[in-house]
Amino acid sequence: MNLVKIAIIGGTGYTGAELLRLLVCHSGVEVIAVSSRSEAGKPVTDLFPNLRGYLDLEFSDPNLLVEAKPDLVFFATPHGVAQSMMKEVAAQGIKVIDLSADFRIRDQELWETWYGQRHQSPEYIGKAVYGLPEVNAKAISEAELVACPGCYPTSIQLAMIPLLEAGLIDPQSIVAYSGSGVSGAGRNAKVPYLLTEASENFQAYATAGHRHEPEIIQGLRDVQKTTDIPAEVLFLPHLVPMIRGIHSTVVADLVTKDADLQQVFEERYETEAFVEVLPAGSQPQTRFVKGTNYCQIAVHTRGNRVVVLAAEDNLTKGAAGQAIQCMNLMCGFDESSGLKAPAMLPG
Amino acid sequence: MNLVKIAIIGGTGYTGAELLRLLVCHSGVEVIAVSSRSEAGKPVTDLFPNLRGYLDLEFSDPNLLVEAKPDLVFFATPHGVAQSMMKEVAAQGIKVIDLSADFRIRDQELWETWYGQRHQSPEYIGKAVYGLPEVNAKAISEAELVACPGCYPTSIQLAMIPLLEAGLIDPQSIVAYSGSGVSGAGRNAKVPYLLTEASENFQAYATAGHRHEPEIIQGLRDVQKTTDIPAEVLFLPHLVPMIRGIHSTVVADLVTKDADLQQVFEERYETEAFVEVLPAGSQPQTRFVKGTNYCQIAVHTRGNRVVVLAAEDNLTKGAAGQAIQCMNLMCGFDESSGLKAPAMLPG
Amino acid sequence: MNLVKIAIIGGTGYTGAELLRLLVCHSGVEVIAVSSRSEAGKPVTDLFPNLRGYLDLEFSDPNLLVEAKPDLVFFATPHGVAQSMMKEVAAQGIKVIDLSADFRIRDQELWETWYGQRHQSPEYIGKAVYGLPEVNAKAISEAELVACPGCYPTSIQLAMIPLLEAGLIDPQSIVAYSGSGVSGAGRNAKVPYLLTEASENFQAYATAGHRHEPEIIQGLRDVQKTTDIPAEVLFLPHLVPMIRGIHSTVVADLVTKDADLQQVFEERYETEAFVEVLPAGSQPQTRFVKGTNYCQIAVHTRGNRVVVLAAEDNLTKGAAGQAIQCMNLMCGFDESSGLKAPAMLPG
Amino acid sequence: MNLVKIAIIGGTGYTGAELLRLLVCHSGVEVIAVSSRSEAGKPVTDLFPNLRGYLDLEFSDPNLLVEAKPDLVFFATPHGVAQSMMKEVAAQGIKVIDLSADFRIRDQELWETWYGQRHQSPEYIGKAVYGLPEVNAKAISEAELVACPGCYPTSIQLAMIPLLEAGLIDPQSIVAYSGSGVSGAGRNAKVPYLLTEASENFQAYATAGHRHEPEIIQGLRDVQKTTDIPAEVLFLPHLVPMIRGIHSTVVADLVTKDADLQQVFEERYETEAFVEVLPAGSQPQTRFVKGTNYCQIAVHTRGNRVVVLAAEDNLTKGAAGQAIQCMNLMCGFDESSGLKAPAMLPG
Repeated sequence: MNLVKIAIIGGTGYTGAELLRLLVCHSGVEVIAVSSRSEAGKPVTDLFPNLRGYLDLEFSDPNLLVEAKPDLVFFATPHGVAQSMMKEVAAQGIKVIDLSADFRIRDQELWETWYGQRHQSPEYIGKAVYGLPEVNAKAISEAELVACPGCYPTSIQLAMIPLLEAGLIDPQSIVAYSGSGVSGAGRNAKVPYLLTEASENFQAYATAGHRHEPEIIQGLRDVQKTTDIPAEVLFLPHLVPMIRGIHSTVVADLVTKDADLQQVFEERYETEAFVEVLPAGSQPQTRFVKGTNYCQIAVHTRGNRVVVLAAEDNLTKGAAGQAIQCMNLMCGFDESSGLKAPAMLPG
Repeated sequence: MNLVKIAIIGGTGYTGAELLRLLVCHSGVEVIAVSSRSEAGKPVTDLFPNLRGYLDLEFSDPNLLVEAKPDLVFFATPHGVAQSMMKEVAAQGIKVIDLSADFRIRDQELWETWYGQRHQSPEYIGKAVYGLPEVNAKAISEAELVACPGCYPTSIQLAMIPLLEAGLIDPQSIVAYSGSGVSGAGRNAKVPYLLTEASENFQAYATAGHRHEPEIIQGLRDVQKTTDIPAEVLFLPHLVPMIRGIHSTVVADLVTKDADLQQVFEERYETEAFVEVLPAGSQPQTRFVKGTNYCQIAVHTRGNRVVVLAAEDNLTKGAAGQAIQCMNLMCGFDESSGLKAPAMLPG
Repeated sequence: MNLVKIAIIGGTGYTGAELLRLLVCHSGVEVIAVSSRSEAGKPVTDLFPNLRGYLDLEFSDPNLLVEAKPDLVFFATPHGVAQSMMKEVAAQGIKVIDLSADFRIRDQELWETWYGQRHQSPEYIGKAVYGLPEVNAKAISEAELVACPGCYPTSIQLAMIPLLEAGLIDPQSIVAYSGSGVSGAGRNAKVPYLLTEASENFQAYATAGHRHEPEIIQGLRDVQKTTDIPAEVLFLPHLVPMIRGIHSTVVADLVTKDADLQQVFEERYETEAFVEVLPAGSQPQTRFVKGTNYCQIAVHTRGNRVVVLAAEDNLTKGAAGQAIQCMNLMCGFDESSGLKAPAMLPG
Repeated sequence: MNLVKIAIIGGTGYTGAELLRLLVCHSGVEVIAVSSRSEAGKPVTDLFPNLRGYLDLEFSDPNLLVEAKPDLVFFATPHGVAQSMMKEVAAQGIKVIDLSADFRIRDQELWETWYGQRHQSPEYIGKAVYGLPEVNAKAISEAELVACPGCYPTSIQLAMIPLLEAGLIDPQSIVAYSGSGVSGAGRNAKVPYLLTEASENFQAYATAGHRHEPEIIQGLRDVQKTTDIPAEVLFLPHLVPMIRGIHSTVVADLVTKDADLQQVFEERYETEAFVEVLPAGSQPQTRFVKGTNYCQIAVHTRGNRVVVLAAEDNLTKGAAGQAIQCMNLMCGFDESSGLKAPAMLPG
């Protein structure tokens, strides 16, 4: 079988590094190019010595990527980059998986409001498939452009989808408290993310509003079937002094007491390879899914409220792992190819 | 001036250690005895080498404490101990500050349900003053027995009191999402609190119900003035991979949009030495109050909801510092005596 | 091909957990039993939820393991256990890889002095092959009983072997400063290893002498070829506030200035799959090898001294990974089967 | 008594922050100005919210500091700044305590080699007193310019001084293996010091040579009395995943076996307020001195070698605390004024 040729644009950040870690062990693909404008010419292993012996490439100029004729390109770039290169890449028939926010939100104006700039490829917004395989597997498998969900939105959507699909909660009562490891801020040299500042600390941030909120709301409304009342979410992110992991505690008002919520979740995710509904009474922990593509979920009832707990790795199921899960669907691989290792414990 | 003679019962845990750290620098008191059944006879500095040069005492048998004739006793013991010794101590006219849960809840049956044992000194429950100085300063100053609030309840009450007193929120809509450092679990050798298990991890715990919930509800109901609808709280604790600190994110439905919430908080706490209302738009961080008796609070409005953020040190304002604040009131010292050092940064 | 049937005795500790993590992804083996006296009957995934979906076994009684007819047994037990069961296991023709210290030291009296008990299977000491594949690959491949090296000894031996084999250093001048993550203390509930005690701290320990010192000395003497002066080592271990990793900084006096030390190391380890000699001037970091079987080494010259830096994961190359590397040799698998994933970064 | 007026030049880094934390509680001084070129005009508490309520100053332009007429100036700046402003400050009769490296090394050429620039105030090098009170207390008390020791050099000198003064070791055999918390790298936004990169990691750095090495050697040679063989030190620094703390493990060859080393250390430091010789067999831990001005020392003998362990806080005894200890001597305060609080535990 021919290996699928992969290029990664923006390979110096943490999602790029995570893509590389997973792809070098994937038996169906070959990474032929990794780009970085700032590091062009430098061996990839200078930045990521963990890949010594696994990858013998230098960072290349992103402008040269199309010439390398990859079959599929991952954008692991800040927002704004994928949309600026989209036309050129698509013209070559190259499939695209964008890990940035460029094509996640279908309402162009809403996107432009939250991201503070004009969208440069609005004609592709409608063509992008939202890359949450637990909702869109078939569309992803046929897509030319996949917009990978954000890290927080993945955990919160997986926590609420079974309840919204079944119409079991008041869709306007949702409050999502989330905590993320510091890698969510990227491989960026900023004082607040120094070990000296971010360890031994816990805090809320972006309490006035976070860019992931409209994405979460869009995703939740997409799965509503039983009501005309559109879902709303109050999203409250927190910064946790750890490297990786997202844990969301999502609370909503139940509209019925008759449903067996444990069963609702277990049935909804029975055939999903990467969503694991824990036994009743459990508490997911981010360390149990660190470095893996799993999302562990537990559902609790407290009076007339439901409390759903969801844990994932922000760089894996929240970014690179989910992108590879989408790639597997798009390329006809087994959905879990290259994503099969369990978490380290302790670790 | 004669120094007030202090004894600490249960000096081997973290609240005991924190009491000692603060009391050895307090100019108005003298620690004359520190008890520990298990460590009796061993120098205190063997367990707490940070106190070398500050305290020249051996742990003594708790049964001998009354003989030492202290003026005031702190119980820094697991629940059950203070109530078992209360009668004997009170008979000597010794003032008591109990840092455990023994006298916090006025409803004896409720206490017995949550703590799973019969109360051994029910006659003292009604005599205990709840040691939250921002509510009960005068009663504390006259008390013979003070029941110090729990760590979580302090932060959540301080976050909600101004709103409940003013009748600005639906008292049944309160959800408190809190994160605590691992020292909240005490100086107990248990696998889940090993560095190897608790670092690089974030999780909810006690999602089915936590013992601090009834205490929080009692405290909040005590300050309600404007309504007959009793406050309810859904309390959701989380374990944060850090040593010290509690951060609570408390959400409630506003019943009016007319109040200037920032002003409500600033006025309520204007004269309180240890509650600091941050400027509008701020985000408290636990590190800014680590090792101090301050609680930093910020108030945000999101649609028809209020989101109050409160950060404190669980061992200081959440335990030993607040106990000393109470002691200062009971002994006629300045309320902030011995509690004046700012937090280390970084640290 | 028939899968090799594996049993693990003592599966509740960190080396047991690491064996399981790696073995469930190894294509040539099947884990048929995991024993624990204390947890017998409980699903393995109750303790290690990271293995949900990978392993459907309950902990069994160690006495029943022989009945399960495994082809190979790993002892991941405290010292004393393997030697007490050795005779019974060997009688069934089962191969044994012992991760404990029971068979590492050939001098029985020396072992008994350091471990404070009589050896219970002295007749097997001479039959055990020391499981350092970079020295003993052929003997390991033919062995019935392999004694896996300790975590510190692996890093220090790999750092010194090229120099001692070539006779380039004064063998009595070696000082090894090492730092280990807290998992080196095992999955044991002890106060000093709580997150509250072990994070934000750095210290030496066992400065008066550590059990790994005689093992290191034995291993180093084994490779000396050019001199009658036996190697001595001053070993100084330190506790580092991290979960995993060992870093050794080994200093020795050079007896010649003529050797190209970089070349000596590169040639010595050219064909070794898991020892990576970094380019001149490098500094290994434990995170680059976390969760992997690699040992990264760098060699520096300072005046008439050589400083060798070596980084490994204490639970992988320092324990379970190396044990599987030995198993691969003993079973005829490729030496790196099941050990091929790169480290996570960040992570 | 008039308060001594203090100005701090370079108040945005960690040593500046630590000076402020300690000085706001010092009863003999008043901080009248804190300068920062980049943050001029911004309230100090914007950067350091832990100081809210303690300090009501804005960062000022460093050029305006002399106008403020302070009695004493601390330079908490990168090297090169103090020497560029020295002439102007000295002309006003202002005392200077320089926490940078500008005046530590008496050999101008050696300084210029290690710091890669020409010295701009060579005429002040000879006037500077090296601010290690345990050696130079009298000279410090009379000094106009004090050059505060580096963080590593303080711990290593305190570990070796008793042995070198007494002529008990081979002065050319010293190897100092040290580990520092990440705050040693300053409040600088650089990728390697992000929590994501620096936590869960341990490594050597500057193995080829560190700028503190010549300072250590100079300091050690200054106390040699019994031999003409000048002290040499091989200094091997490591980066430890914690915020604060330095631990040095210093090894040397003994030239006699007759000395009672424990007694030598205890007698040497008997009258020193901030050096604490631990009982024989102890292991200092950085957490026991975190945030304090203490250095804890333990001495071990291993064969013909001595191993001295020394723990301090790199920002306190290693920088700001020691600077205030010097200030106390220069201003006639008690040597430990403002430096009396014990370490937090846990913390």
